[in-house]
Amino acid sequence: MPLSPLPRLLVEPVVRAALLEDLGRAGDITSEAVIPTEARFTAVMAARQNGVLAGIDAAVIAFNLVDPALTVTVERGDGHAVAPGDVVLRVEGSARAILTAERVALNIACRMSGIATATAGLVAIARANGKAQIVCTRKTTPGLRALEKHAVKAGGGSNHRFGLDDAVLIKDNHIAVAGGVVPAIRAAKAFAGHMVKIEVEVDTLAQLHEALAEGVDAVLLDNMTPAQLTEAVALVGGRAITEASGRVSAETVGPIAASGVDLISVGWITHSAPILDLGLDAAEA
Amino acid sequence: MPLSPLPRLLVEPVVRAALLEDLGRAGDITSEAVIPTEARFTAVMAARQNGVLAGIDAAVIAFNLVDPALTVTVERGDGHAVAPGDVVLRVEGSARAILTAERVALNIACRMSGIATATAGLVAIARANGKAQIVCTRKTTPGLRALEKHAVKAGGGSNHRFGLDDAVLIKDNHIAVAGGVVPAIRAAKAFAGHMVKIEVEVDTLAQLHEALAEGVDAVLLDNMTPAQLTEAVALVGGRAITEASGRVSAETVGPIAASGVDLISVGWITHSAPILDLGLDAAEA
Amino acid sequence: MPLSPLPRLLVEPVVRAALLEDLGRAGDITSEAVIPTEARFTAVMAARQNGVLAGIDAAVIAFNLVDPALTVTVERGDGHAVAPGDVVLRVEGSARAILTAERVALNIACRMSGIATATAGLVAIARANGKAQIVCTRKTTPGLRALEKHAVKAGGGSNHRFGLDDAVLIKDNHIAVAGGVVPAIRAAKAFAGHMVKIEVEVDTLAQLHEALAEGVDAVLLDNMTPAQLTEAVALVGGRAITEASGRVSAETVGPIAASGVDLISVGWITHSAPILDLGLDAAEA
Amino acid sequence: MPLSPLPRLLVEPVVRAALLEDLGRAGDITSEAVIPTEARFTAVMAARQNGVLAGIDAAVIAFNLVDPALTVTVERGDGHAVAPGDVVLRVEGSARAILTAERVALNIACRMSGIATATAGLVAIARANGKAQIVCTRKTTPGLRALEKHAVKAGGGSNHRFGLDDAVLIKDNHIAVAGGVVPAIRAAKAFAGHMVKIEVEVDTLAQLHEALAEGVDAVLLDNMTPAQLTEAVALVGGRAITEASGRVSAETVGPIAASGVDLISVGWITHSAPILDLGLDAAEA
Amino acid sequence: MPLSPLPRLLVEPVVRAALLEDLGRAGDITSEAVIPTEARFTAVMAARQNGVLAGIDAAVIAFNLVDPALTVTVERGDGHAVAPGDVVLRVEGSARAILTAERVALNIACRMSGIATATAGLVAIARANGKAQIVCTRKTTPGLRALEKHAVKAGGGSNHRFGLDDAVLIKDNHIAVAGGVVPAIRAAKAFAGHMVKIEVEVDTLAQLHEALAEGVDAVLLDNMTPAQLTEAVALVGGRAITEASGRVSAETVGPIAASGVDLISVGWITHSAPILDLGLDAAEA
Amino acid sequence: MPLSPLPRLLVEPVVRAALLEDLGRAGDITSEAVIPTEARFTAVMAARQNGVLAGIDAAVIAFNLVDPALTVTVERGDGHAVAPGDVVLRVEGSARAILTAERVALNIACRMSGIATATAGLVAIARANGKAQIVCTRKTTPGLRALEKHAVKAGGGSNHRFGLDDAVLIKDNHIAVAGGVVPAIRAAKAFAGHMVKIEVEVDTLAQLHEALAEGVDAVLLDNMTPAQLTEAVALVGGRAITEASGRVSAETVGPIAASGVDLISVGWITHSAPILDLGLDAAEA
Repeated sequence: MPLSPLPRLLVEPVVRAALLEDLGRAGDITSEAVIPTEARFTAVMAARQNGVLAGIDAAVIAFNLVDPALTVTVERGDGHAVAPGDVVLRVEGSARAILTAERVALNIACRMSGIATATAGLVAIARANGKAQIVCTRKTTPGLRALEKHAVKAGGGSNHRFGLDDAVLIKDNHIAVAGGVVPAIRAAKAFAGHMVKIEVEVDTLAQLHEALAEGVDAVLLDNMTPAQLTEAVALVGGRAITEASGRVSAETVGPIAASGVDLISVGWITHSAPILDLGLDAAEA
Repeated sequence: MPLSPLPRLLVEPVVRAALLEDLGRAGDITSEAVIPTEARFTAVMAARQNGVLAGIDAAVIAFNLVDPALTVTVERGDGHAVAPGDVVLRVEGSARAILTAERVALNIACRMSGIATATAGLVAIARANGKAQIVCTRKTTPGLRALEKHAVKAGGGSNHRFGLDDAVLIKDNHIAVAGGVVPAIRAAKAFAGHMVKIEVEVDTLAQLHEALAEGVDAVLLDNMTPAQLTEAVALVGGRAITEASGRVSAETVGPIAASGVDLISVGWITHSAPILDLGLDAAEA
Repeated sequence: MPLSPLPRLLVEPVVRAALLEDLGRAGDITSEAVIPTEARFTAVMAARQNGVLAGIDAAVIAFNLVDPALTVTVERGDGHAVAPGDVVLRVEGSARAILTAERVALNIACRMSGIATATAGLVAIARANGKAQIVCTRKTTPGLRALEKHAVKAGGGSNHRFGLDDAVLIKDNHIAVAGGVVPAIRAAKAFAGHMVKIEVEVDTLAQLHEALAEGVDAVLLDNMTPAQLTEAVALVGGRAITEASGRVSAETVGPIAASGVDLISVGWITHSAPILDLGLDAAEA
Repeated sequence: MPLSPLPRLLVEPVVRAALLEDLGRAGDITSEAVIPTEARFTAVMAARQNGVLAGIDAAVIAFNLVDPALTVTVERGDGHAVAPGDVVLRVEGSARAILTAERVALNIACRMSGIATATAGLVAIARANGKAQIVCTRKTTPGLRALEKHAVKAGGGSNHRFGLDDAVLIKDNHIAVAGGVVPAIRAAKAFAGHMVKIEVEVDTLAQLHEALAEGVDAVLLDNMTPAQLTEAVALVGGRAITEASGRVSAETVGPIAASGVDLISVGWITHSAPILDLGLDAAEA
Repeated sequence: MPLSPLPRLLVEPVVRAALLEDLGRAGDITSEAVIPTEARFTAVMAARQNGVLAGIDAAVIAFNLVDPALTVTVERGDGHAVAPGDVVLRVEGSARAILTAERVALNIACRMSGIATATAGLVAIARANGKAQIVCTRKTTPGLRALEKHAVKAGGGSNHRFGLDDAVLIKDNHIAVAGGVVPAIRAAKAFAGHMVKIEVEVDTLAQLHEALAEGVDAVLLDNMTPAQLTEAVALVGGRAITEASGRVSAETVGPIAASGVDLISVGWITHSAPILDLGLDAAEA
Repeated sequence: MPLSPLPRLLVEPVVRAALLEDLGRAGDITSEAVIPTEARFTAVMAARQNGVLAGIDAAVIAFNLVDPALTVTVERGDGHAVAPGDVVLRVEGSARAILTAERVALNIACRMSGIATATAGLVAIARANGKAQIVCTRKTTPGLRALEKHAVKAGGGSNHRFGLDDAVLIKDNHIAVAGGVVPAIRAAKAFAGHMVKIEVEVDTLAQLHEALAEGVDAVLLDNMTPAQLTEAVALVGGRAITEASGRVSAETVGPIAASGVDLISVGWITHSAPILDLGLDAAEA
């Protein structure tokens, strides 16, 4: 299923703020000084690395916001795999406008594509070893959560909750303050609305037993070895969604997936993925 | 020289937006469900890796904004080197408030400290091989430029221009459209105010000759080998600031610095640095 | 369980905007003209009807924003039942400030208390006839969803989803376009993240059969008679949460609840509840 | 005289905020999951009750903001009376976009039409019994004052002041603090600009005498019986605009109007009017 | 009567925006570089010219927003006349913070005091020649209307309407399009709410006759000579407020006032008044 | 060189805010009352004084924002000299829309043109007496810095720094707290990035000697006589940019320019320039 773009209503404010941050109080003084007003330019955004694209809609919005008269043609959009040299989009029009928008367009597209690429790498390994989906966390960049969650989907991953308010996730500190897994789950069930799922983090099989006895939608198996995960999955026996987390990398994700867990959550894909190198160059004549 | 914090007027809107992004429409439903209103908590933010801190002021603001009654004590602030286990700050007060603010506080502090740490790594190598300063670029996260530029300084680096409006940087595409290095520089000089510096990117020694003949504040020596940089630095002979860029990594920064350039600019430290792992845990009794 | 207040970070922007809307460009010209600067006043906000309170925290914020020096003492907060004459809060300080903030404080508190009161009325009847919870919908006032959902909880109700993004609710138009209940549910399951619940609206027992066969978290039984609801609940047999909707009023809610459904959703409590009459009067000497 | 729409500059921010409130961080996940991107839909917004329309321009803006490619045709706009089945508008285009915008469009249109309908009901009775206009108060929903005041006009009513700053209204508490009707009016006259009208609330004929002796633009006759109002109107003798307020309902508005007052102000039409039931359904083939 | 300050809720956003405009992305780099963190400073804002103060509250807010720990003591506030050397306020605390806030504090205070001073000059002449009040227009600086209208009051002037929405002012272009004074006034009366005053601009005595026959609250006598104004005032005979406008200066205001008009409106005091020179200097030991 | 417009992304928010400030909560009630919806109008904005234009793009945006269907044709834009009667722009379309936008369009265009005109006056004298450019300061109107700096350029002037963050300017108070010119310059050089210029204010030739010995980009020669300036320029001998400031007027700017300084900075052109009188009148048939 092709990935739908995020609503423009959500993306445009982010792009506009980024442009204003870059334009400052005086605008692009270099282009204004050096580029004649009437100069036209055709540029191509292309991949310089293998990867998966995301944030391309936002890049288009950046060009549009600087100059609605620019013509932008997307050749490969969010979710597409690219190799070095693959064209992402072409933009044609005022040379000044294109050079003014370039950095913001690339900053967003490269960052989001980096997240998609990192996700896709883990997804491929996970799929080769089991059924686990790769899911992201709330360890996202301030202000960019919606875009980064979308980039994870572009890379084939799935989204965990979007914020503190759309699902209950009982973590170790909650359990400590609440006085145990059981009272924490009971409090959550008494409180949460019927459309809110409840997940609980368990560090031991004993806690897992307690959680399953109470009944939860999902269990977060934190920092367990593949062997422990295998045992936990067996113990759960389909009574809850199983999610592994902790020290997930390209090296460890295969064995973790092989344990049979449903989900593997990874903070790294949003907080530490390097960008995907995309460049904007003059189109060849 | 200790690093001064960014003005709270600049940082608070970023932190507030991040908290609202995380709180959504209903707030932290897990803590509300599971943690008694009156429960108190003392937590410690500590390093789990070696690195250099940044974004700590922002983390403090996150706790304050969620609950002004929280007591936050910073032990190591922006610019401090940390080792695993080193305490960054202590926060004491309402358990709910601390758990609600935790993720935003960490998201900012870990990201900024990651940038500071990446910068510090390059700074150390550069200093061991020459006089070059490490400077960042405009390849920053949308919305976070001020904080990320500050994090670079926390890591011992220096800042290039903050946006399109505070300095002229004539790049290859500008030169191409303007019809050469000379007309581009002349246009820039005619346009720019007296408090605006002008830098020009040169890819060859021939272009460098032209730029020096016209006179500029700085030259950006893009993608040159250390040998070429050495030759370029000799050619410049102190007539302009010399900045190297392109393919800068821990491996290449030493030889680049040894060429004698004044500055080495690196996009990687802001666009692809992994976070520094900081954690928030219950304080031991 | 006492109701926790909404985070001030969420409520304050709403109250601030309401005050600015009322102050306009010149502020409270009547109080400025008529009330001496130094005049002090003590006022009491009290109930003039039986009902349940909500929005009291917002009222306190209104007084605080106009003048941080006002002393506000809450006697009965969100979720408390009141009778005519019951004191809600006392506010003491600058007469001008109190009179300036009065209308906004009352506008929010009366509206939210009206929602809580309407909810409480249905909750009482529902509880007397079955186990069904009263839940609200997305038929809320633009800009006030968080506060109105909170008011529903103050009245003893529960919250359905907060927006289009935190749960899947497949309604009749979705089913029509998707080509039936089954393809719609399958598409939703393939798309939704693991922390997202899925509910489907069914108008007939045939559709209900289909939905149960596919498996969903909840079924919305729209516009069914109590007899049909009873049959539907039996058919579901605990395999999904059952929610009744359509033409719910004080007259119908009892029989609907008696059908055994888990939830009864009511748009009326947020879109058409009359306010609860609260007044602010000078405290008696 | 047909009612002019509010300036789009005033309405669009309200609608945009309502859409963002509903879209949250991830957008309309149900439509994205269930409705194919290319699916088209034609829907009709129609009345399900007798009433008077308002907020229809805002509904159109909601559809436009979600998707500028939607074609919206208004058949009956603000101020039109409708009967069940009467078409308000038709919208055609992307099925996803229509379903995404539906709730916000209806939330605003139903609420504003409810206000217009409640107003029109009172207007009809008042006109049958006298010359009094129905006017609204500042008891409006936070953030929606401009739209609600406009809805009152759609229902045939008139607007009292829009905020604390555009007219002086001396109420009982002001009089109490100022030390009487006379000093309050004198202070107001000394303070107010020449384009600002002054109204004073009087509870007794004695106060009315004082007010008329001082001279004011309008007198607010609060909580008087029809007999008292008749006496007051006679006493005023055209020297000021007369406004009745307090306990105005469909039952009382006739006798109040028959007293000969110029205006009858009613908080109820903005703070407690039930919505007018409008629905959006698939257009029949 | 001492002038009350504008509500801080209205002023603070203006001051905050001005500070952010000045701080840009990196803050006050000069003070950060040159002034030690711990340096303390005491500065005095004093008048360097004769004039009348306004905007002093805003200046205080500027210092507070940069550093809540600064101690600001106001010696002469809005509405006070000052002579060269007169102290306006003292500020003590962090040297950095004071120097960072200095320019914004002065920019607002000097501008508003310039308006107050210009107003006061005309007020004095007008009072010496008649009873006319000096009133401002809508020719204010974008974004600063509330503050500038307040500055006019500080100078002893009065305020005309604050915007397009709080009073009807029928001007020459309206009359031209409406087809004359009479239809324009009738349309306005049919439309305007009871708390809205109506003023009409007349250029001739014939138009004035028409306006008075219809009845309006005020007449704007545009660009008439003092002799014409005297005739017009006599013609009005107290039936409406009379306002003169057009080419009002220190030279003309006396004869205009002598004509007996009630008001003289002047765009110049808000759109072209030079600042009042206030300076911030180190306090003498 | 023709002046490029400011980016619309920077200007539109200022114009939108100005329109909302003027529209208030109810919009342009006069035009709504008096002007038929369908009435069309053609108006001409023309100069009533000699001067230089600026802010014309912003005026166009004002008309566009009120009604995108208005046709606006600019005949003379920013930087053009005008004489009384010269047409600036024509606007055609809805009479209501034109009259609603008129005041905001004029407020911005008149103010910015006033700044351009004041600048051009000084520029002409300076050019006749030397090579000095006229530069503006940070003494701009809160919220309008970008537009006012642009207006200075429209008048032939140049821009000093745009804020506290884009250049270092060490002033007398900095020097006093830092302990002298030398330590202040050294601290600035150690702190500032390589793209940041450094200027120091000197009041005496002794300070000038110190500054030149340390090396700075520019020296601000404050309040010196033309004779002192001549001596200072000779002393500098091209080693730094020389800027004169203090008591610059049409009378003094010639002698100051004759001293040979590079720049003359003037606060007056932004903080105290009277507007240029532009009017909007019905186009003649």
